[in-house]
Amino acid sequence: MSAVVGKPLHRIEDAALLAGKGRFVDDIQLADVLHCAFVRSPFAHATIEGIDTEFARSMPGVVAVLLAADLAPLLTSPRMPLTASTTKTQDSSTPFVLQDKEVAYVGEPVALVIAHSRAEAEDAAAMVGVEYDVLPAVTDARRAADDGGDIVRSELSSNILKKFSVGYGDVDGAFASAPRIFSDDIWQHRGCGQSIETRGVVVEPRFGGEELCVWSSTQMPHDLFFVITGMLGMDETAVRVITPDVGGGFGPKYCIYPEEIAVPAAARLLGRNLKWIEDRREYFTAAIQERDQYWSMDIAVDDDGRILGLRGHMVHDQGAYAPKAVNLPYNSATAVTGPYIVPAYAMDVVVAHTNKVPVSSVRGAGYPQAAFAMERLLDLVARQLGLDRAEVRRRNLIPPEQMPYTKKLAARSGAAIVYDSGDYLASQAEVLAAAGWDDFPARQKAALAEGRYIGIGLANAVKGTGRGPFEGGKVKVSQDGRVTVYTGAAAMGQGLATALAQICAEQLTVGLEDVTVVAGDTAITPLGLGGFASRQLVTAGSSVHLAASSVAAKAVKAASRLMDVDEATLELRGGRVWVRDSNRSMGLDELARALRGAPGFAFPADLEPGLETTLQWKTESLTYANASHVAEVEVDIELGSVTINRYVALNDSGRMINPMIVDGQIVGGIVHGIGNALFEFMGYDDTAQPLTTTFQEYLLVTATELPHFETIYRQTPSTLNPIGAKGVGEAGTIPAAAAIISAVEDALAPFGVRISQTPVSPETIFNLIQVARAAASQ
Amino acid sequence: MSAVVGKPLHRIEDAALLAGKGRFVDDIQLADVLHCAFVRSPFAHATIEGIDTEFARSMPGVVAVLLAADLAPLLTSPRMPLTASTTKTQDSSTPFVLQDKEVAYVGEPVALVIAHSRAEAEDAAAMVGVEYDVLPAVTDARRAADDGGDIVRSELSSNILKKFSVGYGDVDGAFASAPRIFSDDIWQHRGCGQSIETRGVVVEPRFGGEELCVWSSTQMPHDLFFVITGMLGMDETAVRVITPDVGGGFGPKYCIYPEEIAVPAAARLLGRNLKWIEDRREYFTAAIQERDQYWSMDIAVDDDGRILGLRGHMVHDQGAYAPKAVNLPYNSATAVTGPYIVPAYAMDVVVAHTNKVPVSSVRGAGYPQAAFAMERLLDLVARQLGLDRAEVRRRNLIPPEQMPYTKKLAARSGAAIVYDSGDYLASQAEVLAAAGWDDFPARQKAALAEGRYIGIGLANAVKGTGRGPFEGGKVKVSQDGRVTVYTGAAAMGQGLATALAQICAEQLTVGLEDVTVVAGDTAITPLGLGGFASRQLVTAGSSVHLAASSVAAKAVKAASRLMDVDEATLELRGGRVWVRDSNRSMGLDELARALRGAPGFAFPADLEPGLETTLQWKTESLTYANASHVAEVEVDIELGSVTINRYVALNDSGRMINPMIVDGQIVGGIVHGIGNALFEFMGYDDTAQPLTTTFQEYLLVTATELPHFETIYRQTPSTLNPIGAKGVGEAGTIPAAAAIISAVEDALAPFGVRISQTPVSPETIFNLIQVARAAASQ
Repeated sequence: MSAVVGKPLHRIEDAALLAGKGRFVDDIQLADVLHCAFVRSPFAHATIEGIDTEFARSMPGVVAVLLAADLAPLLTSPRMPLTASTTKTQDSSTPFVLQDKEVAYVGEPVALVIAHSRAEAEDAAAMVGVEYDVLPAVTDARRAADDGGDIVRSELSSNILKKFSVGYGDVDGAFASAPRIFSDDIWQHRGCGQSIETRGVVVEPRFGGEELCVWSSTQMPHDLFFVITGMLGMDETAVRVITPDVGGGFGPKYCIYPEEIAVPAAARLLGRNLKWIEDRREYFTAAIQERDQYWSMDIAVDDDGRILGLRGHMVHDQGAYAPKAVNLPYNSATAVTGPYIVPAYAMDVVVAHTNKVPVSSVRGAGYPQAAFAMERLLDLVARQLGLDRAEVRRRNLIPPEQMPYTKKLAARSGAAIVYDSGDYLASQAEVLAAAGWDDFPARQKAALAEGRYIGIGLANAVKGTGRGPFEGGKVKVSQDGRVTVYTGAAAMGQGLATALAQICAEQLTVGLEDVTVVAGDTAITPLGLGGFASRQLVTAGSSVHLAASSVAAKAVKAASRLMDVDEATLELRGGRVWVRDSNRSMGLDELARALRGAPGFAFPADLEPGLETTLQWKTESLTYANASHVAEVEVDIELGSVTINRYVALNDSGRMINPMIVDGQIVGGIVHGIGNALFEFMGYDDTAQPLTTTFQEYLLVTATELPHFETIYRQTPSTLNPIGAKGVGEAGTIPAAAAIISAVEDALAPFGVRISQTPVSPETIFNLIQVARAAASQ
Repeated sequence: MSAVVGKPLHRIEDAALLAGKGRFVDDIQLADVLHCAFVRSPFAHATIEGIDTEFARSMPGVVAVLLAADLAPLLTSPRMPLTASTTKTQDSSTPFVLQDKEVAYVGEPVALVIAHSRAEAEDAAAMVGVEYDVLPAVTDARRAADDGGDIVRSELSSNILKKFSVGYGDVDGAFASAPRIFSDDIWQHRGCGQSIETRGVVVEPRFGGEELCVWSSTQMPHDLFFVITGMLGMDETAVRVITPDVGGGFGPKYCIYPEEIAVPAAARLLGRNLKWIEDRREYFTAAIQERDQYWSMDIAVDDDGRILGLRGHMVHDQGAYAPKAVNLPYNSATAVTGPYIVPAYAMDVVVAHTNKVPVSSVRGAGYPQAAFAMERLLDLVARQLGLDRAEVRRRNLIPPEQMPYTKKLAARSGAAIVYDSGDYLASQAEVLAAAGWDDFPARQKAALAEGRYIGIGLANAVKGTGRGPFEGGKVKVSQDGRVTVYTGAAAMGQGLATALAQICAEQLTVGLEDVTVVAGDTAITPLGLGGFASRQLVTAGSSVHLAASSVAAKAVKAASRLMDVDEATLELRGGRVWVRDSNRSMGLDELARALRGAPGFAFPADLEPGLETTLQWKTESLTYANASHVAEVEVDIELGSVTINRYVALNDSGRMINPMIVDGQIVGGIVHGIGNALFEFMGYDDTAQPLTTTFQEYLLVTATELPHFETIYRQTPSTLNPIGAKGVGEAGTIPAAAAIISAVEDALAPFGVRISQTPVSPETIFNLIQVARAAASQ
């Protein structure tokens, strides 16, 4: 059972990628393709008084300049649907395909220029004369609800999209009687999910646009398919969406975007092949961003640091539109208690629009902010009570004997939130031991004596993974004996194909090289949901496991018929069905030919044609991964710079199919969290003009800033799926910023500095130290 | 249950076809496509001594001139496989992709010219300098086995591909003791299956040929897919075969042809889009032909005309190659007893190569020859015994009480041939009554008195239909409530989409206009077998019936969950699930959205995602249709011409899904048989040079030659499938030539003329009369 699964095998994706033979959306070469550039609003808020396209149309190479009115006849609605399952209803929170009345953020698409080259399209886009009447911009979500303040879009009566409260228990009572109450304001700033590959769409219309093939760099091919058929009013047989290689998703490619509708509509209108490849500045001003949440929290504890209650208020910056149903702040509000026992809890949430890029999921999807808030509060408790930070956590972690642990909060679906498995105490203990937590104070003291400010930080997290309600898998043996896995999941660079191939190869006793994985093609893959919520290995992996195991059973049954021996005497081994203890066998290729209808094979009643099985693995539950991270940093108090000396991360995502891929995902996730903690800052000025639209201004972490990561894996198998796996894509990110900031604060303990915001730049640190020194010297 | 099925509804295919919006293979417009023309052998048999392509390559517009050696590196074998399930073995009977050593029929492809236009490609093809050394040609299958005679291909040691015998019972005893024995030599001449649309292939390579999309006018998209993947050594994920609208199949498009491999291989080699559209002369010299069989038969009867035994010898002209396993002569030999009880039977068959176009199925696939032989013998018996032709048949027909009737012959698979149902006696009686058979002698006598030679003829037939072993069907409800049927069957103009839509609409209680049918696309349709053996309605129809009924059950189950009511209180009506006796309902669109994973729907354990079902209907049995035809003709004894005055055809193909389509198929089939009887003649001279390669020389029947057809339908439901249907595509053809010739012979009874061959031209009739008159006057 362990020939393939559980092995750190090289990724089957990489031979092509490393040789430059990847097929990303820009590699799709269609004949006579025209290139697209979007005219985007330069203002955060303005009405459009007129658009003059005449000069742009006359420019060299320009084929068309399309406005909302040009696309209107092709669309069932001028604005995007809130979900891919919504074919008719419209929502005043969703973006427009092209805006022709009032722009609400810098980057909002206003017109689509089509030319023979991207350069010509860009040049012409710059010459489309849009007459704007600039309006005041709403820049701060906390101010967005002010009476009489400016409105983000004039169609709205309020900037408040939504208010809600979650909680349970006697919060007032807990706080009224609590020995100690501590409070903090906590803010994680807006960042991006910067994939190497930006977004892009290539469209091939056939038969004058009656049929469309659309390639898009998306996490959600099926959603895009349903949105295209719905928005363009096309029959589901007339549209095919393919996601080729995707150079990273990280959340922003979870949404379906206006560009993904505008380009197909234009291709139908013109009957021409079109390509739009987003440039980096566009990505900074039009792809989803996240993190901006303002938390005001109170925590009630007893004298031993045991939590009695938690309460607070949070403002979620939604940006100018809500491209999807707003789940993130709900995630945050229900995830904040994390792996800890919190007897009473109350949280009020306000979701407010601002004139900034719309917000939806970035890796972690609301969990990192929640973990940051909670872990910052626990550090505060430890500091105020003079307790070790790990000890405070140990006293509050959910012990393994309480698993499965039912939280008193409901998920969005209304179902109870149940942590299925995991040993949080053991996880923390193991990472602390590996990181030398107990020895650190001595080392810190010695360093300080040398004038070096080192610090250590700890953070824990849990992440619900493997979201259903289902995912499809199909396993098929070809006539030549090769095996193909078709999945409704969407590969976006994380090694999905390798993991699914391992699961399939294990069941069919073939080599990894015998398996091809096809994902992200709505014409040929089974019904699926795509890539989000750390779900794909759990859901697609389970369906492929079951489908492959069904194919193995079919092979044995067919061989039994063809060799005229009892099934019980047969075994599948090395990709052949053998009569046990004999030299008689049949290959999967022969069996596939028989089952595809080769002459002479009579099907028994209980054997279906095709050496293949398609099925959907269903689940209504999430399976919860957990993590405990320890970071060790050194702060240069003159420069304000932070060096990460050591990072030890324990992760428990259940059974690992490919430990090398898991490690890559975990480390990548940590790096994302480190970016949030120290570097990534999507800045806007007070007119909501973005300030960081290149990598010179927006600091992405590179290898130079990073330590060698020490990763430790526990493998508490999930009991909720047949492969025992839990998701791994986001688990690394969630506690990372909290661990880093905890360490930085620890390093600066001599100054008594408190840090409740990210990112923490050298300037911030320098200023905090100056303020602390000034206060101390008063 | 009868809102849609059983109604003569207009075909859903026709709106597009009648408006000129059909999408045949030549309508597939790819950018930058290059055009192909094949260099074909002008000799029936010759060695190739050299090929000079230099001048042709230099001609305007020419991109490439490819020979066998150019394609060899792309192919796993230089010659075609015998079956689509054969990936590795080769057979010395199959044709080559391109021939470079020895051509064996006029029309055999030798080189492939690719140019910017078809005209340029044709011009250059004419200038490819192939040096032939002409060899003697084998033109007559009866001579093909002669010792020391010429060999069709020098790789063969004999022209005899195969010899076999079938039979049962004590034939020698029957003949030894029989009161009467009659003998005849019977020949049905070679004809074609002339579809309006010739063959054609369009290929789009992607990623430098790593992936191929192939459009072909074929009856067998899945076979073509498997042959391409096998011959080009490509992974099954890299190839997609699509059959767009197909302008007729009639058997010749059942084979996979060298051109269908050469063009894809060339597209990979060049990395260019290619199109090859066959012209009519190519079709006459390279597409499959059929019928040529020489029967020498003896029939033993008692004094009442009851059959005691049947024996004979048959030579089947196979042409130059065997592109598929040779089934036709086996069909003929086992079908000859038709609907009659034959106590003892023995048949020897020789399958011989000739230097003519290769032979495989044309509509009827060996059955028309068998029926013609048997019916001619029964007419002979009637004449010799002075009995009414109908009475002789009545005495020998299998009576309904013997159904199911097991023949003492095995099908090719080895399974017994079992006629499942049908009332042959009642069928004959009904058609005779309708045709006024009993009154005819008086009319004939009166006509003769006026110098008019009218005659009446009768023929019966049975046809095994609905060949398995399976066919796939998928029924899916879209988010907008539209329904799509995906079938592994292949539409080729016969109204398949309409029939399947009716079956689906009936189960889902939706309108015909709500259903889209997708066939012939290996990427998106389920595993299937395609179009042959009058199988598609029976097999695909059954799978669609069961799949749609499963989808209906899923809809009810999902509605029960969503509306929180018991399933038993629900009914599907008008495309909505209603709570009985209430105004509460849910549409299929809402249910489809829920089942595709719309937020808020929790799947119960027994409900799978997707309002869709895919399944394979399996069968190991054929279901037998039967027919009784009566033709009435008038012969102009001076011109030798035949006028068909009346044609009454009774057909029993079980339950009719769409009577209008059935009628179209039956009448079309009869017309094909009339063509075989009186017009269609694929002539070759004694060097095997084809003489009839245009419609000026090869006479296709047109409306002018045809009477108004009177069709009668019995509907004895098949008990072997859930829709009660039997196949209808070939049933009309099988007895038609026999009925016509019987009538012509009857009209010429005053001259005592005996006709045992088809087609019977005016010249033949004129000569027969002259010979008869000369004999009479001696």
